[in-house]
Amino acid sequence: MSKFKKALFCGIAPLLMAGMLSVTSQAVASGERLYGRFTQDNELYTPRNYREWVFIGSSVTPNDMNDGAAAFPEFHNVYIDPGSFEYWKKTGEFRNNTVIVKELVSVRGKESPSGNGYFPGEFNGIAAMVKSEKRYPDRPGNWAYFGFPEGARHGAIQEDSACSACHQEHAAQDQVFTQGYPVLRAAKP
Amino acid sequence: MSKFKKALFCGIAPLLMAGMLSVTSQAVASGERLYGRFTQDNELYTPRNYREWVFIGSSVTPNDMNDGAAAFPEFHNVYIDPGSFEYWKKTGEFRNNTVIVKELVSVRGKESPSGNGYFPGEFNGIAAMVKSEKRYPDRPGNWAYFGFPEGARHGAIQEDSACSACHQEHAAQDQVFTQGYPVLRAAKP
Repeated sequence: MSKFKKALFCGIAPLLMAGMLSVTSQAVASGERLYGRFTQDNELYTPRNYREWVFIGSSVTPNDMNDGAAAFPEFHNVYIDPGSFEYWKKTGEFRNNTVIVKELVSVRGKESPSGNGYFPGEFNGIAAMVKSEKRYPDRPGNWAYFGFPEGARHGAIQEDSACSACHQEHAAQDQVFTQGYPVLRAAKP
Repeated sequence: MSKFKKALFCGIAPLLMAGMLSVTSQAVASGERLYGRFTQDNELYTPRNYREWVFIGSSVTPNDMNDGAAAFPEFHNVYIDPGSFEYWKKTGEFRNNTVIVKELVSVRGKESPSGNGYFPGEFNGIAAMVKSEKRYPDRPGNWAYFGFPEGARHGAIQEDSACSACHQEHAAQDQVFTQGYPVLRAAKP
């Protein structure tokens, strides 16, 4: 599957190096710590430190289980920003300013000393979703979806017909696939 | 595969609830923050907050890819304590007092809107490895391996013939399967 075609799905594109990612967090008057920094057009600067956020779940949809042409032929390792995880633990809901990052990791192989299976290889890009009433008042659930073209300083907002439609139809809670995130389910009050 | 048989492999047993896990971190004179609390016999109290540590990689070895009898028929989601991750980023090595936790998560299904694959279900137990010159001077590499019987307050150290032998033979660096942990590889100096 071409990178271009893959980008059509959820705007995911590989990043050359982890070091190219660049985001900072910011504090707000309320005292709640927010994560994510935005352009004037409300596009998310490429997240950098998400690997030290809270991992919520992983799945794999390899090519060889999808007639050689998986939409996302990688592991999906999904993270939520720590401030929104704290809010989730108290309320069981996604706060305004929630940032969720999906990192794609290639399949390295199918055999290891622990048995046959799928084993991760290298980073292959990220995608993100951000919930904000202020920034995205007209988007369903106030969620915007971002793809990150290779080497881009910030993400590109995806059309509702791409990511959002599938998330709205199939995700268990507020466009988030909580059915695949045992960490969220276990932490829900 | 029976839970008992599974326990023979790496001492892994399911924990009834996340809430039963119980560990605190401790500061030391050097100022380095350590994670893990130990019994008088140097057995690790069951880690509790590891889901907010640093996730380093996931793999899956399902039953249906292992003649119905996988040694670990689950997703393995692996975490390192944050203090040891900081040390790794500076040195590319595992410090004394490194704690690595492997959480097992069952396979929920093989189909989703994003394609065919393996998708996570529920928590199914943890295992851990701890490196300590002081606590485990006679173990290879000073690593001890722990299984956590269901509901146990602390882990049980596993014989070298169980986990350690395989880790020594197959792991890429210092008994840790860094070949399967893209986060560690990317963060190595």
